[in-house]
Amino acid sequence: MRKIRMGMVGGGSGAFIGALHRMAAALDGEIELVCGAFSSDAQRSKSSGQAMYLPADRCYDSYQQMFEQESQLSADKRMDFVAIVTPNHLHFPVAKMAIEYGFHVMSDKPATFNLNEAIALKTLLENHDVLYGLTHTYNGYPMIKQAKHMVACGELGQIRKVVVEYSQGWLASKADETSKQASWRLDPKLSGISCCMGDIGVHAANLLEYVAGLNIEYLCADLNTTVEDRQLDDDGTVLLKLTNGAKGVLMASQICIGEENNLRLRIYGENKSIDWSQMEPNTLWLRSNNQPTQMLRAGVGDLCSSAMTAMRTPAGHPEGYIEAFANLYLNFAKQIRAFHAGEDSSNETHDVPGIEQAIRGMAFIEQTVIASKSNTKWHAMNISES
Amino acid sequence: MRKIRMGMVGGGSGAFIGALHRMAAALDGEIELVCGAFSSDAQRSKSSGQAMYLPADRCYDSYQQMFEQESQLSADKRMDFVAIVTPNHLHFPVAKMAIEYGFHVMSDKPATFNLNEAIALKTLLENHDVLYGLTHTYNGYPMIKQAKHMVACGELGQIRKVVVEYSQGWLASKADETSKQASWRLDPKLSGISCCMGDIGVHAANLLEYVAGLNIEYLCADLNTTVEDRQLDDDGTVLLKLTNGAKGVLMASQICIGEENNLRLRIYGENKSIDWSQMEPNTLWLRSNNQPTQMLRAGVGDLCSSAMTAMRTPAGHPEGYIEAFANLYLNFAKQIRAFHAGEDSSNETHDVPGIEQAIRGMAFIEQTVIASKSNTKWHAMNISES
Amino acid sequence: MRKIRMGMVGGGSGAFIGALHRMAAALDGEIELVCGAFSSDAQRSKSSGQAMYLPADRCYDSYQQMFEQESQLSADKRMDFVAIVTPNHLHFPVAKMAIEYGFHVMSDKPATFNLNEAIALKTLLENHDVLYGLTHTYNGYPMIKQAKHMVACGELGQIRKVVVEYSQGWLASKADETSKQASWRLDPKLSGISCCMGDIGVHAANLLEYVAGLNIEYLCADLNTTVEDRQLDDDGTVLLKLTNGAKGVLMASQICIGEENNLRLRIYGENKSIDWSQMEPNTLWLRSNNQPTQMLRAGVGDLCSSAMTAMRTPAGHPEGYIEAFANLYLNFAKQIRAFHAGEDSSNETHDVPGIEQAIRGMAFIEQTVIASKSNTKWHAMNISES
Amino acid sequence: MRKIRMGMVGGGSGAFIGALHRMAAALDGEIELVCGAFSSDAQRSKSSGQAMYLPADRCYDSYQQMFEQESQLSADKRMDFVAIVTPNHLHFPVAKMAIEYGFHVMSDKPATFNLNEAIALKTLLENHDVLYGLTHTYNGYPMIKQAKHMVACGELGQIRKVVVEYSQGWLASKADETSKQASWRLDPKLSGISCCMGDIGVHAANLLEYVAGLNIEYLCADLNTTVEDRQLDDDGTVLLKLTNGAKGVLMASQICIGEENNLRLRIYGENKSIDWSQMEPNTLWLRSNNQPTQMLRAGVGDLCSSAMTAMRTPAGHPEGYIEAFANLYLNFAKQIRAFHAGEDSSNETHDVPGIEQAIRGMAFIEQTVIASKSNTKWHAMNISES
Repeated sequence: MRKIRMGMVGGGSGAFIGALHRMAAALDGEIELVCGAFSSDAQRSKSSGQAMYLPADRCYDSYQQMFEQESQLSADKRMDFVAIVTPNHLHFPVAKMAIEYGFHVMSDKPATFNLNEAIALKTLLENHDVLYGLTHTYNGYPMIKQAKHMVACGELGQIRKVVVEYSQGWLASKADETSKQASWRLDPKLSGISCCMGDIGVHAANLLEYVAGLNIEYLCADLNTTVEDRQLDDDGTVLLKLTNGAKGVLMASQICIGEENNLRLRIYGENKSIDWSQMEPNTLWLRSNNQPTQMLRAGVGDLCSSAMTAMRTPAGHPEGYIEAFANLYLNFAKQIRAFHAGEDSSNETHDVPGIEQAIRGMAFIEQTVIASKSNTKWHAMNISES
Repeated sequence: MRKIRMGMVGGGSGAFIGALHRMAAALDGEIELVCGAFSSDAQRSKSSGQAMYLPADRCYDSYQQMFEQESQLSADKRMDFVAIVTPNHLHFPVAKMAIEYGFHVMSDKPATFNLNEAIALKTLLENHDVLYGLTHTYNGYPMIKQAKHMVACGELGQIRKVVVEYSQGWLASKADETSKQASWRLDPKLSGISCCMGDIGVHAANLLEYVAGLNIEYLCADLNTTVEDRQLDDDGTVLLKLTNGAKGVLMASQICIGEENNLRLRIYGENKSIDWSQMEPNTLWLRSNNQPTQMLRAGVGDLCSSAMTAMRTPAGHPEGYIEAFANLYLNFAKQIRAFHAGEDSSNETHDVPGIEQAIRGMAFIEQTVIASKSNTKWHAMNISES
Repeated sequence: MRKIRMGMVGGGSGAFIGALHRMAAALDGEIELVCGAFSSDAQRSKSSGQAMYLPADRCYDSYQQMFEQESQLSADKRMDFVAIVTPNHLHFPVAKMAIEYGFHVMSDKPATFNLNEAIALKTLLENHDVLYGLTHTYNGYPMIKQAKHMVACGELGQIRKVVVEYSQGWLASKADETSKQASWRLDPKLSGISCCMGDIGVHAANLLEYVAGLNIEYLCADLNTTVEDRQLDDDGTVLLKLTNGAKGVLMASQICIGEENNLRLRIYGENKSIDWSQMEPNTLWLRSNNQPTQMLRAGVGDLCSSAMTAMRTPAGHPEGYIEAFANLYLNFAKQIRAFHAGEDSSNETHDVPGIEQAIRGMAFIEQTVIASKSNTKWHAMNISES
Repeated sequence: MRKIRMGMVGGGSGAFIGALHRMAAALDGEIELVCGAFSSDAQRSKSSGQAMYLPADRCYDSYQQMFEQESQLSADKRMDFVAIVTPNHLHFPVAKMAIEYGFHVMSDKPATFNLNEAIALKTLLENHDVLYGLTHTYNGYPMIKQAKHMVACGELGQIRKVVVEYSQGWLASKADETSKQASWRLDPKLSGISCCMGDIGVHAANLLEYVAGLNIEYLCADLNTTVEDRQLDDDGTVLLKLTNGAKGVLMASQICIGEENNLRLRIYGENKSIDWSQMEPNTLWLRSNNQPTQMLRAGVGDLCSSAMTAMRTPAGHPEGYIEAFANLYLNFAKQIRAFHAGEDSSNETHDVPGIEQAIRGMAFIEQTVIASKSNTKWHAMNISES
């Protein structure tokens, strides 16, 4: 037995999300970083990798070079999978090349630059025997697993209404646009046709569908570009109709000044409702009309097995975002081991978001932009090629 | 000097809101209940009034009898104003007769059965020298006064987004429909064309406009009748455009199982945002992007004068719903004293919701119902006669 | 049937606690204020009473005059009971005279100036047929009633540990001493031998004993005079042994800067624990080791009957300090009606703190001061005359 | 540059704290686990190590074997430091041998079995050029760094009162004693003279002294053995006098049923107070008497540099216990690098708890046990050999 070996594209010094991927991968001792193309600048890639104590010869000039050279290494040395942590416009080309070289892929979201690329990615995956994971991080929280379990078990009864909100304030002013994180997200050439929906709305939509076990079928969108001179949306609200007829409201914003990373999901059923907030992730509220509200807590009492395996500490020792992230990597590592062992290595079995979520996410982004421009209220959410 | 004298229509034994009006009126020792027509059943009216220690001859058989007989009492005895606490369909006829007899009116909301009645009420008030107040109770909270003040002072900067939510669960199941409170609210003959928007959505809309100092100009509505066999809405979401171009989201529901009386208002400006929840009303959160969040508390430090005068206890001794309600009555008592003294007795001066709010509220109810039935996204909020 | 008639001693313009007693008495429409000696200054007493719309002839120059003259009024006019809201040194002489004239007494706490007076008061009450109530306000909260009920029913199992904390910051600096409220509390001639323990520690001790159904038997006290040049304590911690052997910690402070009125009670049993905070009084937390924490809420589900009768609003419409206070007055009004009717009018039956609590409170104050001066750890709590 | 190499003693399969040490060490990519003696059972040590993907020849039969063999490895291979994660009775002998072999030591707390061992450890360290760190994990939280900074800067003014509480419920019943974690902690041969004070009271005392920058000078203790047939304390309260004359209260308990890991620290100064809770560690409350309460949040605005370097995620992406733990390892890795570079490698400079904290902790444990048995109230906290 050995650790699973990871390469990385993107995530050089100063990049925020790359460091988080590395911590998430390292936490459980199942994955080791062995190589990377950390920057489009070859020198910067090298210096970044060496700061991670990688040998110089595994710090590549480009992702193309990395895939080529790694593929020529012996099986006991070469990386097993690549983590893609670049801006959006590179997700598809990097994933495509990785797949063609036979490396598994763990991609940051949104999956691709547009829906057509996501559909193309699906075709590629159908033709290559590689695994594909998508880091919808928030799925990784134990109490989200518990929430999904309770919905699936029918504890809430038929779902009637879903409210998901993802409010941030970090793009509330023009002065905020100068950071590295902001500038590419607001640039349609790097980010795609949406900033807010593409960056965080898609997380909210994914979380809702993941927990509710229902799909978005119709939507009515009102996207806004609040701060002047921006080319993309920085705020939006989307009314939803779900597959079972339930209604939903999705609010996402990057201009809600003073909000940190306020992702909150509420699901109201016939009998009970649940309420979860990412900023206090170890608590899940369960409410009903005539009984005391129950505060379910990570580590306390009987939780479902997927919640239990997603926790590392006893009750009251808070786990957070990095641990949730690590749960995706941990599951992906197990998925790769199952693949190696010739066992069931599907995303569903291993609870790793995959190409289906990639396509639904890209469809959500595109449809909300289209719907927002229309004065017709309801639009079907179309997941086929445009 | 003497106490202001109140009569009441509705609010007999078992009625919830009547008792609250009486407590609110009694709290500050400025108003005394002197008479009432507490029920359409004459015997029940009498027994109800006597349980309040009223003399039998001031417990009337009907509101018509009350106005007639009270108007014949000497000035040192007859009531000054009537509190109308009946179901909606009676608000207008009772107010109309009170006005015609020269009694001031304090009416529960929604002001009337429909928009046309509210417009007619305005005409009546223009032709009679009486005062009219509307109990949008939530305006009475001290920290709502403070929030309004801070917005008006520009502390938030230009307002960009408003989110107001009013979630309840008490009508989540058919079994809930049998209570007195539920049955008339769900009956279009007693309640009007809306249950949820008429009962609580209108409170949310009023609170938003009151604090933001902005009006709703356009709306996109999705109202739902969630529980089968109901004739009226029990849930709804409304997207808003406000007078300054800011966007808003208003959610109101009576089927959010497990929610008590969850009215929450958030206003996001360019510079700061505020967040207030009715269930913890003595706290007002003030947020900005790069400073610690501030928790303003009733009774702590310098608050605006209208917040200060709306508080009765020192910091940390919680005041609640009845005190907020009492603030409306206290202001209305002062308004009546000003009227008696020939001083400025406008609703604006005395911070009492009046006929303008009545009309806007009825327009909001009607327009959301209309807009919800349409597949056109945006509808202007029309406050003229239909 | 008629309202119960209240006179008041103390509580003139500017006094904080008098106004609260009046609101608490007025709220439910069961009690009317009919007279008062609101100040030791006769003119100020008169102007204060007239500002409350009392007739001039019921605004007395002194409490002596009030008792004398009221006792000569006809039974359908004279007051039923007196509310004593003066500084501590007058509680006993006013109560004594009221009792001797046959008026029932509702006294602010602490009951008397010292333990000996409280014991003397008990003797007086044994010799006169009048009722005596003591406003330990915090007992009046619905969720405190529920907590007491749950403890009594054994839901927590044997009680093992109690933690009660009452933290305020209002006396944290010398500058705070100039207010009317502060100056008399810090003056041993008006306040007694303790400031902090006499003002708020006694509330905490009472609440603990009320809910736990256990008495304090031994204590180890560390009282502090934190701000220089004060003659009395402004902070203290008391370790406790209760009657069943359970341990307790009582913290009270007036120098915890930034604290408002932070009274919190936790009781840990063998099986479950409860947690209640006065600043969010409508919530009672019920915890156990392997089950979700339960949040019991005023107005939600089945609560005990004494909690139910202590609430006026539906779930989610917060009631607060004044309503808790009003519950004591409401119970006292019922107690007086029972007395008039010749029915059981004991404090226990009517859930009104009385002379037993008065004596225990004064003993607690005296013993903590004595124990604090000693370097012996444990002291018995002695409730007999010193 | 290379990663720092860690060996481990204890922490085999099933051990809770060993896994946490490994995650904490792995998180930031600065430390790699290279060897271990994970169990006193040689076979179990081997299988545990191999489950961590260690080569079989670095999974040792005993810690003695590990130190001996590692010391013979070449400098580019052998471990730099040992993490000691055994029960308490082994902390000293393992540390002693490590020091004598020249390996740096990172020890779990409490440092040793008793105070004399801690004093002996200090002597050993004075005679060997090795580093010693002690995992008082809670020091590692960013907002604790911020709190310490604010106290040190005088933002609170002179400290007057400190309240630290550490409440758990996991040992509330006899049935809880069977777990591996419980059984050794309750066994005086493995744990020492105290269970509750040794396990968690010592954390609370350390945290208090760390943040307040003040030492405990005198204490009055009341320790309890609540559950029958236990040989050690499972609950206790300690009154404190600190070096500047401030008073303190320390509560620690393992029988507070329903409590998870409720460590909370409040410090009240002349001007402001702070309040921090481990279960919501990214928030620090700053209170004063006449200003809004401030909620400082990890990642928001200007925090002190030691808080800033202790954070890995942007605002609103919660970090927790493992990250706090990792901060101790990260600092220790830097300390070792400084040692290698011949730079200042003191514990103070690198903000790593060391031998001074070890001695104070062991003194605290011993003195509370002694003081609790005495009926004299105050006892000096004596840190010299007994």
